[in-house]
Amino acid sequence: MPSEFELIRHFFERPARSARLGVGDDCALIAPSPGMDLAVSTDMLAEGIHFLTGTDARRLGHKSLAVNISDLAAMGASPRWATLALAMPTADEAWLSEFSAGFFALADRSGVELIGGDTTRSSTSASIMICITIFGEVPPGDALLRSGAHPGDDIWVSGELGGAALGLAQRLGRVTLSNQDADYVTRRLELPDPRVELGLRLRGLATGAIDVSDGFAGDLMHILERSGAGAQVHYESLPRCAAFANLGDPELEQRCVLSGGDDYELIFTASATRRDDVERLARELKLPLACVGTMLEGERKLEFCDAAGRALPAAGGFDHFK
Amino acid sequence: MPSEFELIRHFFERPARSARLGVGDDCALIAPSPGMDLAVSTDMLAEGIHFLTGTDARRLGHKSLAVNISDLAAMGASPRWATLALAMPTADEAWLSEFSAGFFALADRSGVELIGGDTTRSSTSASIMICITIFGEVPPGDALLRSGAHPGDDIWVSGELGGAALGLAQRLGRVTLSNQDADYVTRRLELPDPRVELGLRLRGLATGAIDVSDGFAGDLMHILERSGAGAQVHYESLPRCAAFANLGDPELEQRCVLSGGDDYELIFTASATRRDDVERLARELKLPLACVGTMLEGERKLEFCDAAGRALPAAGGFDHFK
Repeated sequence: MPSEFELIRHFFERPARSARLGVGDDCALIAPSPGMDLAVSTDMLAEGIHFLTGTDARRLGHKSLAVNISDLAAMGASPRWATLALAMPTADEAWLSEFSAGFFALADRSGVELIGGDTTRSSTSASIMICITIFGEVPPGDALLRSGAHPGDDIWVSGELGGAALGLAQRLGRVTLSNQDADYVTRRLELPDPRVELGLRLRGLATGAIDVSDGFAGDLMHILERSGAGAQVHYESLPRCAAFANLGDPELEQRCVLSGGDDYELIFTASATRRDDVERLARELKLPLACVGTMLEGERKLEFCDAAGRALPAAGGFDHFK
Repeated sequence: MPSEFELIRHFFERPARSARLGVGDDCALIAPSPGMDLAVSTDMLAEGIHFLTGTDARRLGHKSLAVNISDLAAMGASPRWATLALAMPTADEAWLSEFSAGFFALADRSGVELIGGDTTRSSTSASIMICITIFGEVPPGDALLRSGAHPGDDIWVSGELGGAALGLAQRLGRVTLSNQDADYVTRRLELPDPRVELGLRLRGLATGAIDVSDGFAGDLMHILERSGAGAQVHYESLPRCAAFANLGDPELEQRCVLSGGDDYELIFTASATRRDDVERLARELKLPLACVGTMLEGERKLEFCDAAGRALPAAGGFDHFK
């Protein structure tokens, strides 16, 4: 079996491009662009918690990086660099080959350079653990914060909600879907497409933003908490995956749309005076952007109402420790 | 039980100091000092592999950060920021309290600000997993690289070797030591003191450097590989923990000194013309610096010789997959 160091080199070591020094020394060296702030985020993905045992390694390589790039998108930052730490019970060459192929395909497409990493054995009974730290650049003052939403702002969401959660339910055998729908929602779960271009274009337009990783309701709550405001959301306005229409299970649909995680769409707020600008942006990006509610004065309370204006019981976000 | 988010806030969220935006949004925002390169390193520590189950949580908090700071020291970089990702089977408040106390005590002393993190449940059977990414600053061109050593350079090592490995052997019940020695080597194992000040002072003096994480022989081999040179090391010159003198087990001593990991001393190379400068630095820092060998022309071969000049069999570095 090749040694740890040979494995790392073989799959993850490439010549440095924009980095001054890439993988292979005690540290990587990067020269951030003069005058830019660096946006940094770290995410850990655990087998059995964030992904199912047996998940396709190539798709997992994609998704591990995608969820991190999504954090940059939610800040309006340009992806630049990443580090990757991997722990696994045995050094599985076929798995590493596929994982790195998926990782680098998205990295190359997104302008991300892998600058460092660590590969280690986890204890025999343990599972695969992936930790990525991502670095992006954003001009000072331009980052999209959770804390910037104002009462009266529109609440927008990109793309569609609930597909990834439905994909997980399908994977776990809890729902039966047509082959076409099953394939579609599995892709929503395993191959999320981070909304980088949208995030960049929202600089100067959105007042607040977050990505949908834990579920629409829980993630919007973070904007409410940080912005010190409430919100009313029209449940029927929430864009959702078309597969729900074929399923005819409104209860599951509501759970997936409000509390399903892993969609990696962006929720953002913008002044109601900028509605035309947001709609123009949607056309330019060919990405649906739906106005789903309004930020409110007062306590940090999130209300959902139906088409008739009646209150729906609020659904909390996904919490790993609950 | 408090939710994941409440736990993170309680133990790890502090007001941003030098960061523009700290823990609590999709990303942290930092403004690297103009003109400086950023040194970045990532390390994953797995329970049962990098630390024993039941290791004191406060010491583990210290060590997790120390091993990362040590990577900055080996580059000659000033510590600035870190992110921390933690996976554990259950959210253990007492453990988190102790772990964070140990982490922040060293962070504050080292000028490191925690700017982001992730806390997640690992699957039920899984163990604790810690992933830290560290950021330091170094003027362009001043970083100490593994690749800079030249044939004829002296090879130096700071402090002493083998103590951490002896501490591990003692913890595993493989050796019996006096209480005083046991306490000393346990501290070497659990409370390493990264050589930051030494690294900074070696800018412009050392030609190559690496920290001793996997074992002296294996780590020096990385300098040989990257610098394209060989080395001869005088085994008797290697500084070692005093506890070995009381133990009288030369075979274990050799294994610990050459292949024991976790000492977090610095190995560095410097021109033989700078010997006085290195010795003056040792006096100023009150840190022993031992000249242990010489870089050689030719193939990347590491030879050890005893006091009589006879070759010793070389010992490889620690490899997680072997």
